[in-house]
Amino acid sequence: LNHVIETDAAIVGAGPAGLFQVFQLGLLGIKAHVIDSLPHAGGQCIELYPDKPIYDIPATPVCTGRELIHQLLTQIAPFNAVFHWGQEVVSVSATADQRWQLHTQALAATGSALEPTKTFITKTLFIAGGVGSFQARQINLPGIEAYRARQVHYHYRTQDSTQNKTQWAGQQVLVLGGDETALQCAIELAQQPSAHRPAKVMLLHRRSVLQAAPQTLAHLEQLRQNQQLQFMVGQITGFEQSRQTDTATLTALHITDPQGHTHTVALNTVLAFLGLSPKLGPIAQWGLHLSRKQVVVDSEKFQTSAPGIFAVGDINTYPGKKKLIVCSFHEATLAAFAAASHLSPHAQVALQYTTTSTQLQQRLGVAHK
Amino acid sequence: LNHVIETDAAIVGAGPAGLFQVFQLGLLGIKAHVIDSLPHAGGQCIELYPDKPIYDIPATPVCTGRELIHQLLTQIAPFNAVFHWGQEVVSVSATADQRWQLHTQALAATGSALEPTKTFITKTLFIAGGVGSFQARQINLPGIEAYRARQVHYHYRTQDSTQNKTQWAGQQVLVLGGDETALQCAIELAQQPSAHRPAKVMLLHRRSVLQAAPQTLAHLEQLRQNQQLQFMVGQITGFEQSRQTDTATLTALHITDPQGHTHTVALNTVLAFLGLSPKLGPIAQWGLHLSRKQVVVDSEKFQTSAPGIFAVGDINTYPGKKKLIVCSFHEATLAAFAAASHLSPHAQVALQYTTTSTQLQQRLGVAHK
Repeated sequence: LNHVIETDAAIVGAGPAGLFQVFQLGLLGIKAHVIDSLPHAGGQCIELYPDKPIYDIPATPVCTGRELIHQLLTQIAPFNAVFHWGQEVVSVSATADQRWQLHTQALAATGSALEPTKTFITKTLFIAGGVGSFQARQINLPGIEAYRARQVHYHYRTQDSTQNKTQWAGQQVLVLGGDETALQCAIELAQQPSAHRPAKVMLLHRRSVLQAAPQTLAHLEQLRQNQQLQFMVGQITGFEQSRQTDTATLTALHITDPQGHTHTVALNTVLAFLGLSPKLGPIAQWGLHLSRKQVVVDSEKFQTSAPGIFAVGDINTYPGKKKLIVCSFHEATLAAFAAASHLSPHAQVALQYTTTSTQLQQRLGVAHK
Repeated sequence: LNHVIETDAAIVGAGPAGLFQVFQLGLLGIKAHVIDSLPHAGGQCIELYPDKPIYDIPATPVCTGRELIHQLLTQIAPFNAVFHWGQEVVSVSATADQRWQLHTQALAATGSALEPTKTFITKTLFIAGGVGSFQARQINLPGIEAYRARQVHYHYRTQDSTQNKTQWAGQQVLVLGGDETALQCAIELAQQPSAHRPAKVMLLHRRSVLQAAPQTLAHLEQLRQNQQLQFMVGQITGFEQSRQTDTATLTALHITDPQGHTHTVALNTVLAFLGLSPKLGPIAQWGLHLSRKQVVVDSEKFQTSAPGIFAVGDINTYPGKKKLIVCSFHEATLAAFAAASHLSPHAQVALQYTTTSTQLQQRLGVAHK
């Protein structure tokens, strides 16, 4: 049975915009639930540039994506937001009493359902979805999607593919990808004790250059020389199947090498590590006014075409919009004030300063008695 | 003869908004001159709360006003902005070639002209004036302003009043104020060698409670016991003058004590330390569209009613405006992009990211190679 969470504010997206939204709502005394399709905070900062320097956060001359998120999590800690990880919001609908009902589902891309599906009923909703939800990049081959979750599995972390050590015993496994996560997966599978080991482990990458740590590359090369795994350069260009009653089973893949020769290789399991690609996803279906796949907002409240639904950060658009983190902080600030007025239409929402306001300092947990 | 400075960008105000304006212009390859009426960076952050904590700068869970300004100065260092301290912009007028001509004057409140008056001709102008320019708070007594700069001097730093050690020799000096700067001034004057010493040093404050360091208070008390200076509690409620030809000279002040008794005290010099108070000042006369003493801007470019003149930070207004530092960072960002288009109307101003753009990293001085 579905547990329904009722709240004043729900935020979709736990990147910098969503996290600072928690902060500005918190200063105004509004507690938030945060929903993200990833299993952790950070959005693009963590998925795309966790260790790269960012130079344009005001008053922070340099920080990495990871450091930025750490700082924001520290800053919002006093407000005790409730995070719901690995959940994608699949539908938003209006309730009879001018609230919004959200349904989520656990995201298949993470390889396993982290939490059961949830229902939220919220008075205000903040879309801080960045470029949309991150989904594992798919194999570009018509028809292959029929085997998804049965024989073709998308991952972006090694542990998602190898946490159940016995899962691939006796299978003919193709690991697809050329980065550290793909190589680690192939190495782990090839080194399983014989009872748990796949019958075949093949690593396939579209180029001969692999991007991984030197010791990982050395380890791979050693396993390859011992014939514990195979490495091929090429792309999947077709597949073969056998059909029993109404279920088709993948039996082999056609792999085309850089010279244009196509090889048919017996394989029945694909573990694909093709990275993440952002998709606007279900947000496109929520009935909001969009422009070029961006959610249209005003620049006074950063409210969408639906009253009580706001959009901040890279996902919104308005005249002058720049997709910069510094702008999302402003957007979240004005959206928070607008939401406070939406929640209490007859009250005056006062502007207070954290430097001087005892009420704000109490909410931050820093007030002197 | 007036030296004319020609530039692409001039920024009025070196508080957080003006400093971040330097940064965003710098990323776009535009060098700026910065003009501030104070003798240093920081604006309200330094004048009003240098040592108080600020909690709402994004990704900076806590910092003092001084620390915030230090971080921003570090961040903008690569862009080599030219700062013009202690200068107030007194007039702005359009040139025949669609530029703006600014005249500045050294601000009297600082007690001495720090730099000669300057003229700027700029293609774009950014008003980041906060609450206006900080001016020394005046004595609230009709007629007393006639003696300003001759016998009544406004200061906000001790050294401005005592740097010329012989200036007050033989005078009957009233030091007005109850804080560290006023007390230090009175103490310094009372301790001058006899040839330079005033004939009389009196400290006047409206309350008996003085706000200064314990050792300063002890020092004052010792001088008072030695009759090297006097301390009175009260307010100036009138004055006496003598008139020779067309010049009136202040000869005495009426000081009313807390019991309501008025004393006539022979005094011919007043050094007032009444703090700073912000004034919109000459900006009100520049012909810009104002609303309730705020400069009206759009929220796409943060441009004023004059093309090429932008306003960012506490001095501007637009629908939804909140006087928060976080909002000024966004405003400065969009104003910089709008200014870049204003400077190169036919070029496309590309959005680049400091994390990935070699050009931005070169401008920041952090590019590899």
